[in-house]
Amino acid sequence: MKILILGGDGYLGWPTAMFFSKKKHDVVVIDNFIKKKMELEFGYKPLVPQPSLQDRVKIWNKNQKVPIKVLIGDLLNHRFIGDVLKEFKPDSIVHYAEQPSAPYSMSNRERAVFTQQNNVIGNLNLLFAIKKNCPGTHLIKLGTLGEYGTPNIDIEEGWINIDHNGRKDKVLFPKRPGSFYHLSKVHDSANIEFVCRNWSLKCTDLNQGVVYGNYTDEIEMDFENLCTSFHYDEIFGTIINRFLTQVITDYPLTIYGKGNQKRGFINLIDTVNCINIVANNPPKAGEFRVFNQFTDFKSVNDLATQVISVSKKIGYKSNMKRIPNPRKEMEDHYYNPKNTSLISLGLKPVVFNEETICKNIKLISKYKKDVNKDYFLPSVKWEK
Amino acid sequence: MKILILGGDGYLGWPTAMFFSKKKHDVVVIDNFIKKKMELEFGYKPLVPQPSLQDRVKIWNKNQKVPIKVLIGDLLNHRFIGDVLKEFKPDSIVHYAEQPSAPYSMSNRERAVFTQQNNVIGNLNLLFAIKKNCPGTHLIKLGTLGEYGTPNIDIEEGWINIDHNGRKDKVLFPKRPGSFYHLSKVHDSANIEFVCRNWSLKCTDLNQGVVYGNYTDEIEMDFENLCTSFHYDEIFGTIINRFLTQVITDYPLTIYGKGNQKRGFINLIDTVNCINIVANNPPKAGEFRVFNQFTDFKSVNDLATQVISVSKKIGYKSNMKRIPNPRKEMEDHYYNPKNTSLISLGLKPVVFNEETICKNIKLISKYKKDVNKDYFLPSVKWEK
Repeated sequence: MKILILGGDGYLGWPTAMFFSKKKHDVVVIDNFIKKKMELEFGYKPLVPQPSLQDRVKIWNKNQKVPIKVLIGDLLNHRFIGDVLKEFKPDSIVHYAEQPSAPYSMSNRERAVFTQQNNVIGNLNLLFAIKKNCPGTHLIKLGTLGEYGTPNIDIEEGWINIDHNGRKDKVLFPKRPGSFYHLSKVHDSANIEFVCRNWSLKCTDLNQGVVYGNYTDEIEMDFENLCTSFHYDEIFGTIINRFLTQVITDYPLTIYGKGNQKRGFINLIDTVNCINIVANNPPKAGEFRVFNQFTDFKSVNDLATQVISVSKKIGYKSNMKRIPNPRKEMEDHYYNPKNTSLISLGLKPVVFNEETICKNIKLISKYKKDVNKDYFLPSVKWEK
Repeated sequence: MKILILGGDGYLGWPTAMFFSKKKHDVVVIDNFIKKKMELEFGYKPLVPQPSLQDRVKIWNKNQKVPIKVLIGDLLNHRFIGDVLKEFKPDSIVHYAEQPSAPYSMSNRERAVFTQQNNVIGNLNLLFAIKKNCPGTHLIKLGTLGEYGTPNIDIEEGWINIDHNGRKDKVLFPKRPGSFYHLSKVHDSANIEFVCRNWSLKCTDLNQGVVYGNYTDEIEMDFENLCTSFHYDEIFGTIINRFLTQVITDYPLTIYGKGNQKRGFINLIDTVNCINIVANNPPKAGEFRVFNQFTDFKSVNDLATQVISVSKKIGYKSNMKRIPNPRKEMEDHYYNPKNTSLISLGLKPVVFNEETICKNIKLISKYKKDVNKDYFLPSVKWEK
């Protein structure tokens, strides 16, 4: 398979690229390093030092039969992405190349506008480039479970059958996103659904839960040289990764508000496995297919309690601390998102259990001295 | 009332400005003349020649106690709109200032991107400017009935009560827009709903039907000097206005496809009356209120048949002609959009009847010699 990874330098993009390369697929990786620039704006570094993308690829390619190729470019440059698709004509495109942070998008006007401009227009350019150069290509687009918000009904996978005043229709599941970032993903999904309908493109939109974890089989081949970007800060750090980093520094696990908020999550290994399953099971032309890509969901309190309980067994002394919620979100709510599609296609989820938690803690504990505790507390407020 | 009209040079903006000025409200009008520039790209002129905005305002202000003020500027310039709101602090903002054409947005990549960039980012800048400078201001945002598409269920006004797997919620009505233009309005609505929820702004989102007509009381005070922009071309012309122009030139009324497509429509007079009703009945802080702003709906065939039948009585010899549908849309569908909110607030709709049709025909018939029949046929195709 010829597979193009957009955002291939990122937390998810890099492990995905290695995974497909290992399976001898023809992998091209694109990045514009905008996330690295965003990190500089806040001064937040990822926990584990990484070689540059180019160096990682060189190291990786030494032991592989089919080398990963790297291209540097921006989706806002429509000629760039058009030329790449014209030349490479991928079977699948995995689109991770978006501004990925809700707090970043809520920090001020400039960043809200940047988020929607970068994500929505970059994605539009990609759609036009696919239509022109490779209309049969399967677009695998990363969205987020957060697009749905926390409705008082079961969250279906993208579409819902409605019975209203005695008539029926199948419609896009109504969304209630909680930040300008989440909104940008909602806008993307609407644009993509339209081009599937109007131009008969084929797309899988993945509404992914919060990803956690620091290793895949490929990363473990040479952790120091092949590791992925691991953030624990308020802007780019996801909640479980932050909790794990708080554990190793004996810092209390910070709970935003009541902690009754429930969220879906998924291990990094499963993210990559899901992409593999999706790429090998494309939708038909004209289909806008949506999967909810998470393996478990829990309240923030339950997550913290579990992490604390497990970490105590291996000698850590964590506890939890409630802080005022910087976000505007429902803290008590019904939550029942569905995730049967990927399971039925063969996903065998990694379980968030003692073994998984301990292995992640062990991997990051080597970098304990590099943890900057100032990164933990939220500075961006939703309602300011 | 202090009222700010964004897009005040346009087909709807200009009559709205005169209406509120006549009622002695304090009116400021903003435009960036982007639509005039877009007309130049296609070479399409409106039917009736107009004095410049500045000249029209001078002529209007001669006979008014409270003069209309004009400011030239662009919502993409966030400092401009911020400064205006800081200084003027309007009670209501009527936001017409968006790229208004579906065919324009579908004509190529550049125009699709321009449409979403201009509309979505301009609206975001406006929302941030309101939050900072006048968070109590009532935003009256123009959207379109076309955002809903043609679902197989009744179209409610913006929100719908869903009963799903035994649980209930009130959610945004799911949309299925038919062009990048319609999508831009869907994105706007999602962004606005979020800021109402997150920042407690107040907004009325008006999903308006196709507007037709060439006069209001204020225009009729001095038609030649105070007329509004009347388009009959494939890009900017709305269907009824195009039909009326075809009638006066003995050109067959062009029906896209089967003509069974049903659309909601509204007279220009009622657009202005609706804005007045909405401005005088603001929602409460934090409310995202949606009204469907149309007064009648019919199939394209029924509209054409009615126009032909009425025009025959006054000596015209129109007929209709089917042409291949340049758009991708359902041509046979259920359609039942609700519009009770504005009626219950007091709207007394203008009826699309012999009197209305004849009066419009009479007004534009003076410009028969200026009609360019080349404008009638669609050049922009949805699936190309």
